[in-house]
Amino acid sequence: QHKDYYLRVVDKQKDGIVVRGAKYHISCTAAANEAIVLPCRTHGEEDADYAVAFAIPLNAKGITLIASDPEIRGPSTEETIWDFPVASKLGVGDGECMIVFDDVFVPWERVFMCGEWQFSRDIAILFGTFHRLFACCRMVPMMEIMTGLAALMAEYNGLENYSHVRSKLSWLVQVTEAFKVMSLAACMFPEKERDSNLANPNGMYTNISKYMYAENFHQFTKFIQDIAGGIAADPISYRDWMNPEERPYLEKYLDAKAGIPTEDRLRAIRLVADITGGRHDTHQIHAEGSLQAQQMMFFREADWGMYKALAKREAGILGWEEHPTVGSMKNFSDILKEKMPPFDTSYKV
Amino acid sequence: QHKDYYLRVVDKQKDGIVVRGAKYHISCTAAANEAIVLPCRTHGEEDADYAVAFAIPLNAKGITLIASDPEIRGPSTEETIWDFPVASKLGVGDGECMIVFDDVFVPWERVFMCGEWQFSRDIAILFGTFHRLFACCRMVPMMEIMTGLAALMAEYNGLENYSHVRSKLSWLVQVTEAFKVMSLAACMFPEKERDSNLANPNGMYTNISKYMYAENFHQFTKFIQDIAGGIAADPISYRDWMNPEERPYLEKYLDAKAGIPTEDRLRAIRLVADITGGRHDTHQIHAEGSLQAQQMMFFREADWGMYKALAKREAGILGWEEHPTVGSMKNFSDILKEKMPPFDTSYKV
Amino acid sequence: QHKDYYLRVVDKQKDGIVVRGAKYHISCTAAANEAIVLPCRTHGEEDADYAVAFAIPLNAKGITLIASDPEIRGPSTEETIWDFPVASKLGVGDGECMIVFDDVFVPWERVFMCGEWQFSRDIAILFGTFHRLFACCRMVPMMEIMTGLAALMAEYNGLENYSHVRSKLSWLVQVTEAFKVMSLAACMFPEKERDSNLANPNGMYTNISKYMYAENFHQFTKFIQDIAGGIAADPISYRDWMNPEERPYLEKYLDAKAGIPTEDRLRAIRLVADITGGRHDTHQIHAEGSLQAQQMMFFREADWGMYKALAKREAGILGWEEHPTVGSMKNFSDILKEKMPPFDTSYKV
Amino acid sequence: QHKDYYLRVVDKQKDGIVVRGAKYHISCTAAANEAIVLPCRTHGEEDADYAVAFAIPLNAKGITLIASDPEIRGPSTEETIWDFPVASKLGVGDGECMIVFDDVFVPWERVFMCGEWQFSRDIAILFGTFHRLFACCRMVPMMEIMTGLAALMAEYNGLENYSHVRSKLSWLVQVTEAFKVMSLAACMFPEKERDSNLANPNGMYTNISKYMYAENFHQFTKFIQDIAGGIAADPISYRDWMNPEERPYLEKYLDAKAGIPTEDRLRAIRLVADITGGRHDTHQIHAEGSLQAQQMMFFREADWGMYKALAKREAGILGWEEHPTVGSMKNFSDILKEKMPPFDTSYKV
Ligand SMILES: Cc1cc2nc3c(=O)[nH]c(=O)nc-3n(C[C@H](O)[C@H](O)[C@H](O)COP(=O)(O)OP(=O)(O)OC[C@H]3O[C@@H](n4cnc5c(N)ncnc54)[C@H](O)[C@@H]3O)c2cc1C
Ligand SMILES: Cc1cc2nc3c(=O)[nH]c(=O)nc-3n(C[C@H](O)[C@H](O)[C@H](O)COP(=O)(O)OP(=O)(O)OC[C@H]3O[C@@H](n4cnc5c(N)ncnc54)[C@H](O)[C@@H]3O)c2cc1C
Ligand SMILES: Cc1cc2nc3c(=O)[nH]c(=O)nc-3n(C[C@H](O)[C@H](O)[C@H](O)COP(=O)(O)OP(=O)(O)OC[C@H]3O[C@@H](n4cnc5c(N)ncnc54)[C@H](O)[C@@H]3O)c2cc1C
Ligand SMILES: Cc1cc2nc3c(=O)[nH]c(=O)nc-3n(C[C@H](O)[C@H](O)[C@H](O)COP(=O)(O)OP(=O)(O)OC[C@H]3O[C@@H](n4cnc5c(N)ncnc54)[C@H](O)[C@@H]3O)c2cc1C
Repeated sequence: QHKDYYLRVVDKQKDGIVVRGAKYHISCTAAANEAIVLPCRTHGEEDADYAVAFAIPLNAKGITLIASDPEIRGPSTEETIWDFPVASKLGVGDGECMIVFDDVFVPWERVFMCGEWQFSRDIAILFGTFHRLFACCRMVPMMEIMTGLAALMAEYNGLENYSHVRSKLSWLVQVTEAFKVMSLAACMFPEKERDSNLANPNGMYTNISKYMYAENFHQFTKFIQDIAGGIAADPISYRDWMNPEERPYLEKYLDAKAGIPTEDRLRAIRLVADITGGRHDTHQIHAEGSLQAQQMMFFREADWGMYKALAKREAGILGWEEHPTVGSMKNFSDILKEKMPPFDTSYKV
Repeated sequence: QHKDYYLRVVDKQKDGIVVRGAKYHISCTAAANEAIVLPCRTHGEEDADYAVAFAIPLNAKGITLIASDPEIRGPSTEETIWDFPVASKLGVGDGECMIVFDDVFVPWERVFMCGEWQFSRDIAILFGTFHRLFACCRMVPMMEIMTGLAALMAEYNGLENYSHVRSKLSWLVQVTEAFKVMSLAACMFPEKERDSNLANPNGMYTNISKYMYAENFHQFTKFIQDIAGGIAADPISYRDWMNPEERPYLEKYLDAKAGIPTEDRLRAIRLVADITGGRHDTHQIHAEGSLQAQQMMFFREADWGMYKALAKREAGILGWEEHPTVGSMKNFSDILKEKMPPFDTSYKV
Repeated sequence: QHKDYYLRVVDKQKDGIVVRGAKYHISCTAAANEAIVLPCRTHGEEDADYAVAFAIPLNAKGITLIASDPEIRGPSTEETIWDFPVASKLGVGDGECMIVFDDVFVPWERVFMCGEWQFSRDIAILFGTFHRLFACCRMVPMMEIMTGLAALMAEYNGLENYSHVRSKLSWLVQVTEAFKVMSLAACMFPEKERDSNLANPNGMYTNISKYMYAENFHQFTKFIQDIAGGIAADPISYRDWMNPEERPYLEKYLDAKAGIPTEDRLRAIRLVADITGGRHDTHQIHAEGSLQAQQMMFFREADWGMYKALAKREAGILGWEEHPTVGSMKNFSDILKEKMPPFDTSYKV
Repeated sequence: QHKDYYLRVVDKQKDGIVVRGAKYHISCTAAANEAIVLPCRTHGEEDADYAVAFAIPLNAKGITLIASDPEIRGPSTEETIWDFPVASKLGVGDGECMIVFDDVFVPWERVFMCGEWQFSRDIAILFGTFHRLFACCRMVPMMEIMTGLAALMAEYNGLENYSHVRSKLSWLVQVTEAFKVMSLAACMFPEKERDSNLANPNGMYTNISKYMYAENFHQFTKFIQDIAGGIAADPISYRDWMNPEERPYLEKYLDAKAGIPTEDRLRAIRLVADITGGRHDTHQIHAEGSLQAQQMMFFREADWGMYKALAKREAGILGWEEHPTVGSMKNFSDILKEKMPPFDTSYKV
């Protein structure tokens, strides 16, 4: 439809190049002085105009920044901190910008690559590796916080000795710790760049590390919401908590484990709602009864007698004959004997 | 700590009973005239005061409603409909109330049960079954919408022919259709109440049906976010879209498949962000490269030569001897022969 | 490489056609009188020779049957029934044959299709649907037996009250029951063939039904092995059991729940080993401790204090300051204030 | 029922102790000279007799070994190596023994612990950790072989460029490599024993490492069987392959990718069948069509038009009005307006 979906060189001049295109969701741009622009994919010869890398001040002529809409509009206040403990400090996608390049001039001394399409692939992969290692650094504390939050909610709800809750906590800690080790391994076993002594993060381990938290993130949120209970779908807001008429009721009825201030529990629940981003998710899990509640019903409704009788019959263990249904099932070979015509030995074309 | 965590009878009088306690997140209460209050669990003899069921007008003396904080404060406008297409209409947890009963009087003619603790279990289970069947009714259209949304995003992003996208869409439709059939089966194979002709929803099938969507909901959101791309973490807001200076850039650069208006794509993305509730989730999946990007790297970085040589050696297929590492691995039984002392036939205590 | 990978017409004669090729793993062939041969995929015009369907007696000239190797060679005896309760009766792949057609003549009256490549697709899909519905019929009892076997092992091992065991049994019964309903739905909501009154199994539901057991089968075997214990990796054979010197030890030490004959337990374990086919699988799960044993260790080794302190810090709950590590972590914004140079307001290209 | 389920001290004498009980599935016993016997669980004071550790020659008076039944009876021959490439060399559970102790005398100098029940827990945990680290050593090559086998089958079947096959291979390699790193970390970050300089394997990392392969093993076998195809359920035996009448047909029709000898492919398939232990598993996956085949049908049968129309309606995107069903669905608020009685403002108790 148009040629500018990826950023490209539209003119080469004596002193520099002119570029056009846009980059989308580039973190922290609104707070940065300069941007370094790289190709983000493999190129063929015909893509030479797209094989361009350079550095550019973000107030250069022709650059427009369109910052993404913050999760929480307005300044961080006591209210927003209660209601959205994470988003009020560091919203997701808050600093991201679309950077538009409207025929921006870049002097040659700031151009690192211009047309050498053979190297786009290496740059894209290397950038990806570094970027993912950074992601792991960012996410180690987050996974630790989430694991801790699950443990905290289990404590506040008095669920610490339930076997399914322990097994969920065990799973969270196992992923968190494995993820930390993989991130470490990415640094401890670096890869040497071809013909140089530069050490790059280990490609396999960095990618495994990034994948580990990204692949498992939804399971993290699910387990946390599960343990937190349905209240994470409609957590108590600052306005409600501060309302003197409501407070006594909230204190009395949303209290949980002895010794834990109701406020602590409510704050933890707001963190669950904010960090797992999911009133919808929690709603589906808890409204009309938790997952555990359904499992209990499966167990209760199941016709174990029939199932076991069938298994006994197959295993050659006596006892199945007494079961009304299974006991009256004929033996397969007896049926065959009764129903089958004698072998047709005359059969021929 | 106190005895009112569950609602209970505090006094029995000539004309009625007096109850105290609270019920949390009761849907639609703010819009209802009356509430029917039931026990929510099994009781023993010592819990007789908690075994109480009755109907009560919600403006009765002593009742206080604390409505949960809506997802979107303020009225539904063109802006909130763009930004939060679902939450602006019907937010999660919006109509839920905490119903507080401060020594509320209920006349005997509205009391269905008072002290018959033996029946609490039956009531709780039966209410659970009906409530879950209702949940299924509510969620059939939602799962259909989510499946459709994934397909729409695949179309708008031009991904329809990618094998992994098709397999995700196939999975979504399979769960949706199985869930619909199970909900239907819950009605088609009802259970007769003991000693009556009342038909109740099938207990096993209703619970399976509820479990199916609840257990799979996070996987639904994950697949939708995966297909939608990173933009669902910082979707374009109404304010940005309506800003005449930004609009041409947004139109040009956030365009996707030929023939699809950019606005349609951006609206679909807002629906993704709103319905999956997860800027955080999407962030983790996409920032620093989609899950698919890491998988590609696993494939590229893997030492397939070594792996295959090992497998060949085990299978007795020639070719592994040429591999530098695997080829130089000794045969286990040769090592044994070399290293093992002769059998010690004199061994004795 | 050669043109006979799929069966094709090599000659059309006055009275009939001549076909060449082979069909692999065709169930029950060794016991059948006739075979009906159909195309198994979509064809284009250039594949017209492969678009052929006919019926043929299996002792026709030019047909060779190569039966697959049975799981258990030799007749079914008391020993093989003990050792392999399923395989001894009906081995997997036992009756399957490769049917080779060496220029086999088929008279026209037995040819249903010859060259009408446009219809190959319909035939392949319709055959697939019927074949899968048959698969469901075959697997309903098998899934019931497996669910029962898990319950039986839980009983014999005295594990019925462990929460993780109940939750595994609940899962098994839920899949089994959902699968049964889907199979039923495949018949209850049939599809009418174009321009005819023939009712075919519902395409969507039949495929969901087949997929449900096939997709979940490995999870079934895993859970059964998990509950059965490590002994399913080296179950007691008939020879051992019948050996009078071993018997007293086996009776004494492999006994489990009071009242259950050791023999019953050992037979059930042989059924586990045979039906889940997996000494290897069981080995990996149990040797060096069951999965549950590792989970217990995760829980025990985890630094819950640190995790919870991190979560408290994020939620704004007091208590984290006392933790040695977390308490000494500076506030991010304080660090920024200290380390950051003053804003460079002169920044310009 | 009896007190000997766990091994215990039945007599303490001047020179030593007398023990009774049995140990089940102890690896390699048949080939060992001595056994070291340890408590396998936590003990309380009342269990003091069970808190016993010692070393004992396996031909001591009163010891009986009952070796488990080997997977393959009889010596390893060309035939068994073809048919069962792994089991013929090193069967699962082959060397395991039940060790029975019939009042066996152990001299004091070989007794390490006798009655110190407080230490049973430490010993059980430490043994578990070492045992699991050993398990990891054993399984690193096995997981590499299995990953390689999947890649080999993909190559031999000509499937290397299918996206779902690549994504399965990527998953296998990712687990294998993460598992290797975790095993390494277990050694690189050892734990110091209380009051000693002994370095024990890292408890958390060792357990994660063991869990990683055990938890994922069934998924490994599933993916390998999936890629191998239905033939792994009825693989060609040595007898068939060596039969001169069958050989030409097998060569011709079981050939796959050009350049790969049929024999190599058939050997690889036997390895799949032997290592994944699962003719049953493969049967369920492939008979009546692979999982992929059902997914294709879900995609084909789905009513995408309806699903997309529903999503459009929800997102506020035009186009849904034309869909026959969705287009005729009324607006929820319009229905409300029509059906609802006017608000009953007189409502009162
Ligand atoms: C949006 C919304 C609307 C709702 N509307 C209504 C309504 O209209 N009417 C109504 O009656 N209710 C309503 N509910 C309440 C809903 O039924 C409960 O949220 C649900 O039953 C879960 O209970 P809970 O929130 O107390 O969580 P819990 O049940 O406390 O769950 C928290 C955790 O504790 C575990 N747990 C709890 N008990 C046990 C146990 N005995 N053994 C092992 N584990 C246990 C659970 O497995 C879970 O992991 C609504 C809830 C929501 C979120
Ligand atoms: C919060 C946030 C911050 C970010 N910050 C930065 C930043 O600072 N710098 C930066 O450079 N980038 C940044 N990004 C961009 C990020 O790198 C991309 O979002 C990510 O690479 C995914 O690309 P995409 O959004 O175009 O989604 P896509 O890659 O288009 O993914 C959408 C779907 O298409 C599929 N798909 C795409 N291509 C293929 C293919 N060839 N084959 C098969 N399937 C395919 C994917 O698997 C996925 O299912 C940020 C993103 C976010 C969300
Ligand atoms: C091939 C093989 C070789 C072996 N070699 C050795 C060896 O050399 N030395 C050695 O000492 N051992 C060896 N073992 C034994 C091995 O350590 C045990 O099999 C393993 O610890 C599992 O114990 P189990 O078989 O008794 O099963 P169990 O532990 O009884 O497991 C059966 C089920 O019961 C559950 N369960 C058991 N206890 C609890 C509980 N307290 N709470 C909740 N659930 C519970 C488990 O989760 C599981 O679902 C070997 C085993 C095998 C299979
Ligand atoms: C015990 C048993 C009994 C059987 N009985 C009968 C019978 O009675 N009658 C009969 O007709 N058949 C029978 N079959 C055959 C059965 O239908 C096939 O095994 C099944 O359809 C799978 O085909 P395949 O074995 O060629 O494996 P493939 O289909 O070759 O599968 C191997 C791998 O290749 C992949 N693959 C193949 N094609 C594609 C593609 N186009 N795109 C992407 N991936 C692809 C698959 O996803 C899979 O991962 C039987 C099979 C077994 C195991």
